[in-house]
Amino acid sequence: MAKYTIGLDYGTLSGRALVVNAQTGEELASSIYDYPHAVMDEALPCGKKLGQDWALQHPQDYLDVLAHTIPDALQKAGVSAEDVIGVGIDFTACTVLPTKKDGTPLCFLPEYVEEPHAYVKLWKHHAAQKYATKLNEIALERGEEWLDNYGGKISSEWAIPKLWQILDEAPEIYAQTDRFIEATDWVVWQLTGKESRNSCCAGYKAMWNKATGFPSDDFFKALDPRMEHVIDEKFSRDIIPSGTFAGTITAKAAALTGLKEGTAVAAGTIDAHVFVPAVGIAGAGEMLAIMGTSTCHMMMGEEEVKVKGICGVVSDGIMPGLYGYEAGQSCVGDHFGWFIDNCLPASYEKEAAEKGINIHKLLREKCESKKPGESGLLALDWWNGNRSVLVDVDLTGMMLGMTLRTKPEDIYRALIEATAYGTRMIIENYREQGVPVNAFYAAGGISQKDPMTMQIYADVINMPIKIAGSDQGGALGASIFGAVAAGSARGGYDDAFEAARVMGKVKDTIYEPIPENAAIYDKLYAEYKILHDYFGRGANDVMKRLKQLRGQN
Amino acid sequence: MAKYTIGLDYGTLSGRALVVNAQTGEELASSIYDYPHAVMDEALPCGKKLGQDWALQHPQDYLDVLAHTIPDALQKAGVSAEDVIGVGIDFTACTVLPTKKDGTPLCFLPEYVEEPHAYVKLWKHHAAQKYATKLNEIALERGEEWLDNYGGKISSEWAIPKLWQILDEAPEIYAQTDRFIEATDWVVWQLTGKESRNSCCAGYKAMWNKATGFPSDDFFKALDPRMEHVIDEKFSRDIIPSGTFAGTITAKAAALTGLKEGTAVAAGTIDAHVFVPAVGIAGAGEMLAIMGTSTCHMMMGEEEVKVKGICGVVSDGIMPGLYGYEAGQSCVGDHFGWFIDNCLPASYEKEAAEKGINIHKLLREKCESKKPGESGLLALDWWNGNRSVLVDVDLTGMMLGMTLRTKPEDIYRALIEATAYGTRMIIENYREQGVPVNAFYAAGGISQKDPMTMQIYADVINMPIKIAGSDQGGALGASIFGAVAAGSARGGYDDAFEAARVMGKVKDTIYEPIPENAAIYDKLYAEYKILHDYFGRGANDVMKRLKQLRGQN
Repeated sequence: MAKYTIGLDYGTLSGRALVVNAQTGEELASSIYDYPHAVMDEALPCGKKLGQDWALQHPQDYLDVLAHTIPDALQKAGVSAEDVIGVGIDFTACTVLPTKKDGTPLCFLPEYVEEPHAYVKLWKHHAAQKYATKLNEIALERGEEWLDNYGGKISSEWAIPKLWQILDEAPEIYAQTDRFIEATDWVVWQLTGKESRNSCCAGYKAMWNKATGFPSDDFFKALDPRMEHVIDEKFSRDIIPSGTFAGTITAKAAALTGLKEGTAVAAGTIDAHVFVPAVGIAGAGEMLAIMGTSTCHMMMGEEEVKVKGICGVVSDGIMPGLYGYEAGQSCVGDHFGWFIDNCLPASYEKEAAEKGINIHKLLREKCESKKPGESGLLALDWWNGNRSVLVDVDLTGMMLGMTLRTKPEDIYRALIEATAYGTRMIIENYREQGVPVNAFYAAGGISQKDPMTMQIYADVINMPIKIAGSDQGGALGASIFGAVAAGSARGGYDDAFEAARVMGKVKDTIYEPIPENAAIYDKLYAEYKILHDYFGRGANDVMKRLKQLRGQN
Repeated sequence: MAKYTIGLDYGTLSGRALVVNAQTGEELASSIYDYPHAVMDEALPCGKKLGQDWALQHPQDYLDVLAHTIPDALQKAGVSAEDVIGVGIDFTACTVLPTKKDGTPLCFLPEYVEEPHAYVKLWKHHAAQKYATKLNEIALERGEEWLDNYGGKISSEWAIPKLWQILDEAPEIYAQTDRFIEATDWVVWQLTGKESRNSCCAGYKAMWNKATGFPSDDFFKALDPRMEHVIDEKFSRDIIPSGTFAGTITAKAAALTGLKEGTAVAAGTIDAHVFVPAVGIAGAGEMLAIMGTSTCHMMMGEEEVKVKGICGVVSDGIMPGLYGYEAGQSCVGDHFGWFIDNCLPASYEKEAAEKGINIHKLLREKCESKKPGESGLLALDWWNGNRSVLVDVDLTGMMLGMTLRTKPEDIYRALIEATAYGTRMIIENYREQGVPVNAFYAAGGISQKDPMTMQIYADVINMPIKIAGSDQGGALGASIFGAVAAGSARGGYDDAFEAARVMGKVKDTIYEPIPENAAIYDKLYAEYKILHDYFGRGANDVMKRLKQLRGQN
């Protein structure tokens, strides 16, 4: 008798439930529910205006996802709740909310309905920048060792800057906050009736380390004396590995979702990281790039190496038992989108319309007849700063080699190549610092839709590239964790890696590097590296000086 | 009784006659005649195909210009030929033709009608590059001192490479060539009945120097033994200053043009150089930039300084009695044209159409609200190599500072600014090498039509910019030389500088530098200079390596 798991994937604008066969990984049916409140970045539902860079969500939307998508997906799949053995949840992160002791979000309380700080702060809430800046300064000053786990800098998107903003701007809300919790953990709490905290979010977004725990109370006191005991007061030191058993569906949750009481629920995880099991990666040294507007690079390693220039290394950070490494490029699809919006001549738009193809396809057609190096162009992919390996938001884009014969498709291709060089830089940075990278996988929209870009990547990094086999990889990864939470006794798996090997999948198409292209790209990458270091490592800080000059206007 | 002169301005596609009042500089009327054969770059009139990079003209067209435009302009002006005291001629250069001893172009002879090498080689005939390259190598090897007069390199557009190409590819035509002469001197010959050679063309295009003459016969022998006596055989050592008396209209020329026999004719000159008197420059240290697709920078100096990185220093090169200095930027209007053709989004084209304005105007409207430095962009203006001061065709464009918020108008403005920095580099290069630059004038299309660009230039160079007062400055300059050829006895001038002061003109509008902009541009120029030297002077030859790699494809 086939057993099934459900993967719940919470994105920025909607949540999805996917029903998966636990024995084969077959995806039977899914259901999507758009958050009624979407992203609140201008005003609260009551009309109260929000500040600049705010981005909030409403936790009721997350419950509505459970109520709508699970029954719908099961019905479409023709699967009975009886045969569902486990549920896994992934979520955007750091997406955090303040709750009472029993998990009730503060924004559910009538007295705080008009209080912005009572709502969920979405990952892209960027109004806590000044707290992150201050936190980094203090951590650096104090020589906090955990800072090296994050490439030397933490982001304004993370939990502590967001909470510090609440303390500073709405001390009453801070005082009323019994728990400050990631949305993924909060959903697990709603399903299982008990609070749990997952290692992926804690490690990547709250500065937790399996061996050393959270930063010291002393450090938090240095931020603000009122935060001295913040971990014990509002977080938890009880962290469980993502993708392991967190609890079971309660009667209340069963009533909400149609699932059976007692169904296993996995500890939460982050939407990007959960792609790793979804492509079948089940060990160290295999990098996964999730390529969208920006790119996340996930990899696991046997050891904890404090690699410079990455976003974080976290024990149990991706899958239980291994160290999770994350690096990133802050401008990939956004790069190409910028080009289309700002640099594309009318004649090209017209040509695409006449041919009835989209403009990216037209540009690819024009590019594909050209060989690497033929345009003579070279760019640095820093239109949105550099996340890895320079960790510097003040860097900006550069392109050279233009002549009067340079065509739009040459520029387009140079931007693609620049992001591929950026990826190679990340790979080589790991290798130089003793972390092997032996295989490369790609997921995300670009990997699915853009063979030319994927071939360029294969040629530039000179490694075969395997492509995610599912177009709902987050939900598939979550379903794998659901199967692990269920365990073999119920028809799931005791070992997350085994579950990933069986249920994860890649496409048949593999992009193999073409040796003659790889040889040219070796030379171009060498040029990229010289310019990368010249502009990125202090020899010529022109980009920063220009930015400063810009700021003076 | 008013006296008049005629300026004849021979451009790339047409010739123009302008009737000017010699006492006031007032422009009475002009007439234009398009060359029937235009530029022959694909085939001869007989259908014979031409090679790549060829560009020929037909000398009959030049005679037709005389026959059509002079009577027409006089009639429009209501001026009698009796009152015309002189004629001046400027021409594109180096535009050269092979003739018989009596001035008959070889292509007029029936036996050579189908021989491409018998026609006029237009300035932009670029098929002699390999001869220029070889010539430069040999000159460098031999330590030829005159090479320093031309910034260390001569161009494939010049007379000797063009003649060497004839010798190599059509030895019979070479043998039949009694005279190899600039088109401007040939027109003077047709008008006066006697051969003359002007100092401007000889100095800037045939390596002649007033003090030292032409390169030695030994040097020419080193190029090809058959060229040992080329100067005496096919050129002339008798060089007269441009803008001085060359002769008078013959009976035959009077019949052709309607002018009176005996009317004074000035020695020829180059279309760019003749703008100098046309704006009223009458002394040393006043730079004139002729801003079109590319920019020429003309200036006179009291001394002969071998300035590095310029196109040439020539005694009597611009006006008699002073040293003429020429520098250049190879990509100015072309730069902006490239942007419009290759980088302009459809939405902008649509907006311009809706507003009923041209696209440059729309871009300027969008730029003008921004302050210097506000875009954060910086570019090197090398889309077509760098003429001055690096003299390196293998350099290519660069831009940096781009972010996801960079708009098309930011890029457009950065390209304009880059060309302004390039101009400042030329000015500072002169000053550093002891040649003062005390004033700045601009002529050419951009100076007339684009106030934003002119203001940026004034701010960047931090000097007031005066603008040419005539939109037919070449013809006006030629008419000034016509007045000088006539001399004061006939109602003209004995002194070219006095003629320029009286007849030359600038507009009332002067672009004054705005101090706060100039202060920001000082900083931006400092950044430009660092990058200019880094990429242009060997610290990182990435542009050349990319070009090489491009060539391998």
